Amino acid sequence: MAAPTTTEAQRHEPAETGGLDQRRVADIVHALDAGERELAAALTSPLHPADIADLFEQIERHHRAPLARALGNRLDADVLAEMTDWVRDEVLEALDNARVAEVVGDLDTDDAVALVEELDAADAEDVLARIDPADRIAIEEALAYPEESAGRIMRRDPVAAPEHWTVGQLLDLVRTEDGLTQDFWEVFVVDPSHHPIGTARLSWLMRAPLGVTLGDVMQREQTLIPAEMDQEEVAFRFQQYALISAAVVDKGGRLVGVITVDDIVHIVQQEASEDILRLSGAGDEGDVNEPVTEAYKARIRWLIANLVTALVASTVIRLFEDAIAQMVVLATLMPIVAGVGGNAGTQTLAVTVRALATRQLSRANAARAVVREIRIAVLNGLTIATVIGIGVTLAFGDPRLGAVIAAAMLTNIIVAGLAGVLVPLGLERAGADPAVASSVFVTMITDSIGFLAFLGLATASGLVGGPA
Amino acid sequence: MAAPTTTEAQRHEPAETGGLDQRRVADIVHALDAGERELAAALTSPLHPADIADLFEQIERHHRAPLARALGNRLDADVLAEMTDWVRDEVLEALDNARVAEVVGDLDTDDAVALVEELDAADAEDVLARIDPADRIAIEEALAYPEESAGRIMRRDPVAAPEHWTVGQLLDLVRTEDGLTQDFWEVFVVDPSHHPIGTARLSWLMRAPLGVTLGDVMQREQTLIPAEMDQEEVAFRFQQYALISAAVVDKGGRLVGVITVDDIVHIVQQEASEDILRLSGAGDEGDVNEPVTEAYKARIRWLIANLVTALVASTVIRLFEDAIAQMVVLATLMPIVAGVGGNAGTQTLAVTVRALATRQLSRANAARAVVREIRIAVLNGLTIATVIGIGVTLAFGDPRLGAVIAAAMLTNIIVAGLAGVLVPLGLERAGADPAVASSVFVTMITDSIGFLAFLGLATASGLVGGPA
Repeated sequence: MAAPTTTEAQRHEPAETGGLDQRRVADIVHALDAGERELAAALTSPLHPADIADLFEQIERHHRAPLARALGNRLDADVLAEMTDWVRDEVLEALDNARVAEVVGDLDTDDAVALVEELDAADAEDVLARIDPADRIAIEEALAYPEESAGRIMRRDPVAAPEHWTVGQLLDLVRTEDGLTQDFWEVFVVDPSHHPIGTARLSWLMRAPLGVTLGDVMQREQTLIPAEMDQEEVAFRFQQYALISAAVVDKGGRLVGVITVDDIVHIVQQEASEDILRLSGAGDEGDVNEPVTEAYKARIRWLIANLVTALVASTVIRLFEDAIAQMVVLATLMPIVAGVGGNAGTQTLAVTVRALATRQLSRANAARAVVREIRIAVLNGLTIATVIGIGVTLAFGDPRLGAVIAAAMLTNIIVAGLAGVLVPLGLERAGADPAVASSVFVTMITDSIGFLAFLGLATASGLVGGPA
Repeated sequence: MAAPTTTEAQRHEPAETGGLDQRRVADIVHALDAGERELAAALTSPLHPADIADLFEQIERHHRAPLARALGNRLDADVLAEMTDWVRDEVLEALDNARVAEVVGDLDTDDAVALVEELDAADAEDVLARIDPADRIAIEEALAYPEESAGRIMRRDPVAAPEHWTVGQLLDLVRTEDGLTQDFWEVFVVDPSHHPIGTARLSWLMRAPLGVTLGDVMQREQTLIPAEMDQEEVAFRFQQYALISAAVVDKGGRLVGVITVDDIVHIVQQEASEDILRLSGAGDEGDVNEPVTEAYKARIRWLIANLVTALVASTVIRLFEDAIAQMVVLATLMPIVAGVGGNAGTQTLAVTVRALATRQLSRANAARAVVREIRIAVLNGLTIATVIGIGVTLAFGDPRLGAVIAAAMLTNIIVAGLAGVLVPLGLERAGADPAVASSVFVTMITDSIGFLAFLGLATASGLVGGPA
């Protein structure tokens, strides 16, 4: 792959701060509407490729193909690499395979792979057939690794050297070797069979006397990334050990690639977005550019699941229809018990899911986390129960009704705290993603227990007659 | 500040993959319980500082002080820098100020600042008085910048050189200058008044002929970070332009520091966590090590707010007490309408808040996002309305009741979609954090409209008599 793309990208970088303002977006859209392609292209010329990618995301769908045509060759690899998947899909469809192949040929392997894996099988094959065989083989090898694995996100051009080389020898080679990548941050020191045995940051090499060997400059302990490792795990390693780049090794432990931290920042952002979206039942790719039908498919599943759990709660209420008929005020108060309980459950759930994602929570401290949530729930429950108990007593002049709602609220908030921590822990232990289905379960529990506790206590306390 | 701390940290790094397994945690706890300090210390010896920090987080509170004592001087700057705030607070309290001052003196300015800003005022003053004056002044200057600003997270030792220098001159200086930091990734090229005019990555310098000037190697366009810029904005720049490090400038545009991407990864993670926690009403620092009383204070506010909004929904139901008394089944079905609507609102809310946080959503495309959410809501609403309408008709043998719940459900899901996108957009435009209060508003709207639409349509359709 052509090494200078990153440098190329930075040449467009705005001299000072970020480049895309709303005024410019409006002007470009106006030019496109007026059919003034050259003006539209001129207006994009000061923009960084990442900002041009943002521009595509911000404009209406029907403006995207005209903008792509207006940009011509400026719609290049760097711009496409920065687009979100949905928008890139659209733009790629507007380009013919010959142009896509040109773009792919200009990208680093990791970006090229990200682009090719989005094409449908026929287009991918056609595009791969059009590019340079060396690039094609590199991309095909990367595609052989699992999705979202280190093998897909690595670059395949790590700078490596043997341990016995001196710093001077390495610097000479780096200065004269044409095929070397432009942008690298560390040199990996390898043994004769290409196993990494240490890492040297460029700043260490620059500060070392020219005569010492790499073996004396390098740091022997290093974080090696197996090519099959999931990208979320890779991101954790980078965060934990504050890595800038890391060696990727194959099953035999041989150096096959390098991952740099700029890709990790995107992955951290993406994994965090997935957690938020999954917790809310909005799928995991929900962004404002996801096509309506895709968003519908992702969301309706969870709404149907929510409908089913709401029916469970509804069934609980039906058990107490006679009680409600005798005392309709119960029907007006019961959603309060369920609602505040649901909110308490959501709070606990968010803290737990996030702690699992950031590895703060593990088997070692799970029991402590549960105890902690119970203690918080008791405090919250006592506070809310006191407020609502006194409020209802005063509003309805009925201390027994106040006591019933207070007891039900306390019960439900404690149940919510337990469910909010135990459900995600249980899903995690069962090997499932704790963010995915937790909130449906927790809501079902807090709704059902809320209604059951309130209506059940109202009946049991003799406030109203028994169930039908 | 002592430059070699990072190198120091990496020397402990595990030879292969991440070091802290549950077995080791259990063994260390066991050793602490048995009072075997030396064994406990020995068991931590293969661990990376980041893993020792995790160890402190995972064990019970009452084990933390004994572990700190067992570690002695191994509880150093690198370990403390990696701890979450809550646990670090606890550990710092267990250390005397003299030891804290030693630790602070070993840290880079950015980490030292993060540590000192957590101490209470008297301890901070005492600690600062004990450290080297040069370090103290650097820390005090950093503390003069706003919290969460670039000035707080920058390191103050950027490597800078004038434009007319040759690559050879620079390499000679770097090799011989003792005071230079060990770890840097780019050299900032400055004019005589210390304004950055370009950046050169170390790999470009290593590949350039020794005789060319820095002016010819550097890239002139660069992303400069004003020292007052909020860290969230800084993180956005790093992501957008795939930066590894960036120059920080004062109000006069002079180079005062450097921010590196490893700190940005933490900020991205932290900001994403804040979004999740705020959306759920769990405060923004909720982690499993937050003390119970702090967690209580953060959460009870939102539960009280939720209680108030639940009372609004309850008031809506009270308008229809007579209708419920006539037809109790309405009370059993109404939570379904409110609940599924609430879930639809939460989905839209999560997508919108995340799109705002990642800058996918702006004024330019806000109208399109609203239209998109309406279209999704109509599809979701029609689907759920059909399912529940047919279900209720069959279950109760009452097509009019089926039609009423279907119409109410469609209405509420569309309202939920609108509220889920308009509430966070409105908060953002008003200058508030859209993640903070959105879900309370949206829940209030979906609950109230859910009850109003269902009970109101039941009354208006003549299914039951009018309101009291």
